[in-house]
Amino acid sequence: MTTVAPGPLVAPDVAITAPALSDGLDTPCAVVDLDRLERNIARMQASADRSGVSLRPHAKTHKSVKVAELQLAAGAHGLTVGTLGEAEVFADKGVADLFLAYPIWASDAKARRIRELHERVALRVAVDSVEGAEALGRAAAGSTRPLEVLVELDCGGHRTGARLDEAVAIARAADRAGLRTIGVMTYGGHAYAGREAIVPAGADEVKVVSRAADLLRAAGFEIAVLSVGSTPTASLPVPAPVTEVRPGTYVYHDRGQVWLGSCEPDDIAFWIATTITSVAVPGQAIVDAGAKAFARDTLRAAPGLGLGLLPTLPGVLREVNDYHGYVEPRGPTRGRPGEVLPLAPNHVCPVVDHYAETVMVRAGRVVDVWAVDARGRSR
Amino acid sequence: MTTVAPGPLVAPDVAITAPALSDGLDTPCAVVDLDRLERNIARMQASADRSGVSLRPHAKTHKSVKVAELQLAAGAHGLTVGTLGEAEVFADKGVADLFLAYPIWASDAKARRIRELHERVALRVAVDSVEGAEALGRAAAGSTRPLEVLVELDCGGHRTGARLDEAVAIARAADRAGLRTIGVMTYGGHAYAGREAIVPAGADEVKVVSRAADLLRAAGFEIAVLSVGSTPTASLPVPAPVTEVRPGTYVYHDRGQVWLGSCEPDDIAFWIATTITSVAVPGQAIVDAGAKAFARDTLRAAPGLGLGLLPTLPGVLREVNDYHGYVEPRGPTRGRPGEVLPLAPNHVCPVVDHYAETVMVRAGRVVDVWAVDARGRSR
Repeated sequence: MTTVAPGPLVAPDVAITAPALSDGLDTPCAVVDLDRLERNIARMQASADRSGVSLRPHAKTHKSVKVAELQLAAGAHGLTVGTLGEAEVFADKGVADLFLAYPIWASDAKARRIRELHERVALRVAVDSVEGAEALGRAAAGSTRPLEVLVELDCGGHRTGARLDEAVAIARAADRAGLRTIGVMTYGGHAYAGREAIVPAGADEVKVVSRAADLLRAAGFEIAVLSVGSTPTASLPVPAPVTEVRPGTYVYHDRGQVWLGSCEPDDIAFWIATTITSVAVPGQAIVDAGAKAFARDTLRAAPGLGLGLLPTLPGVLREVNDYHGYVEPRGPTRGRPGEVLPLAPNHVCPVVDHYAETVMVRAGRVVDVWAVDARGRSR
Repeated sequence: MTTVAPGPLVAPDVAITAPALSDGLDTPCAVVDLDRLERNIARMQASADRSGVSLRPHAKTHKSVKVAELQLAAGAHGLTVGTLGEAEVFADKGVADLFLAYPIWASDAKARRIRELHERVALRVAVDSVEGAEALGRAAAGSTRPLEVLVELDCGGHRTGARLDEAVAIARAADRAGLRTIGVMTYGGHAYAGREAIVPAGADEVKVVSRAADLLRAAGFEIAVLSVGSTPTASLPVPAPVTEVRPGTYVYHDRGQVWLGSCEPDDIAFWIATTITSVAVPGQAIVDAGAKAFARDTLRAAPGLGLGLLPTLPGVLREVNDYHGYVEPRGPTRGRPGEVLPLAPNHVCPVVDHYAETVMVRAGRVVDVWAVDARGRSR
């Protein structure tokens, strides 16, 4: 794995290579290189094993039962999900250990779904407020056993998560509401600020869950799970007392992870195959991957470098309309209509929801087509 | 309809009102107000009728058979689509007159689909290059009748479309390839540069298709269709010799159209219902509409005003992660967990693909749930 040493950013784009795509693809489509996928899964599992922590991959990146099965077969302990709908899809396909790492609001509309899911799989849910815990408790009332929760703490990412001094009050509210507090979790999203931010953000994650666990244990709670981690921070050694990491993006990687140094430039497993459809307007090429086939994410470190990388056509994917990607060539060529290009997303996770299936290739041959089972299950 | 007079932009956000959403929605979900939808459809049809042109709505905005049926019942002549996959979905549901307004590259993978679709519905396809016409001709070879094409011209939007002086060569190539050139088309995307740009862009559309039709007729082609129009330009009177307009967004409208003056602030029919899930981190509220439930589009005229509008919670939706929307409140309140907010997209078209269905409401009551039939049919 790349050493994530602090230092100035170089331009990793030049080293990024696409795997061989199959001929004859019907574009735009999502293509996953199986060799790279398997390597990414093995590597993160080895990293978690070396650290002595459980790996509970976030399924948001693939939303695929078959990819989840590879992760579980390699040694992962359950899955992380972001919505009830994702949890339901994986539960339907036999994944029986699910952590919903999001402080969902247990509305009346969600209450029945929560109870139903809780009765048939091992479900854990994040909570980051007293009111949220109370609502979740009402939703789970009448269950045959307590629903387990993890108190979410903010460790510097400033997204969700309570302050340390609120942890005990939230856990007590959860207990009063009939839930069982079994752990603490955090997400150091500030690792994405740049290479230099990863080591400190990882340290923040460890520090906050350690302290929260201490506070909760002192208040009488049995804390079994200390859960942290994004792809950048989980790629580093993760020390005790952390028990679990939840990276997601590592399974496919993307241009953003290459820029962060979380993977090698030839680790990107997920690509869009896109075709040049028009070079009628001078100075640009139009590709068939637009806003309905892609997601508008820029590189945090280099927003001027466009919405994705096209390694075989030097240029910038500078804009997308619904069906049109605008490529501004850097060199003398702008390609020819009909040319198929591999396109690496800057951030793969929201792109996956645009596709019902991924074309699985190995050494440039299509070997299978896998469903994106939980596509669009956003609630 | 709003008069689209040139003039300085005011801040239309303050006038935007959400329709009454139903209680008890399971969020995030897409909600369409039927009264507004019907009004939008009737108004654009009346506008086309006054201009004496056919309305062929672009189905990309709704991707819904039921919405298309409302448009057709109101007087629309066929539908416009952006991909073969969309065309196939509407053809399967009985829409027999379809214009694929995109210069698709007729690869081997698409050739069978093109032939099959051409045999069962009235299909027209855009072409903007000699090579593209030749490939399309090869794809349609052996059909029982010629496939009809429209030559696409660039009128200033600089996306796709040939130059005027290329039109005859493209039409001749199409003829040689066994296609039949029946018309010309353009899209004045530069209307979206701002209110002041709409009238000139509309004039550019008319000018370019008029000249192209003259050139092609002089070369011996029978040109029956002169097709133009986006929601901003088609909302204005469209003069002869134009025969057809293809607006899409008008059916739902969005915050961007309000800013352009293409609709009134109470015309937005499509909303995301989203719930505040966390206010744990000071100074912000987190809503459950993130990058997997929404699209990252800013207002061209005011990119600092965030990724969408929340009329009931004054503030800026400044960022999205996969499951998290970050709202920075402008006023003293940042809402409370569990509060459901209506969220207007800046640009509705790519958002629709995130949802399998739309909840149809009238006067705040759920009256039906409609499928987004062609969701994700991006190829």
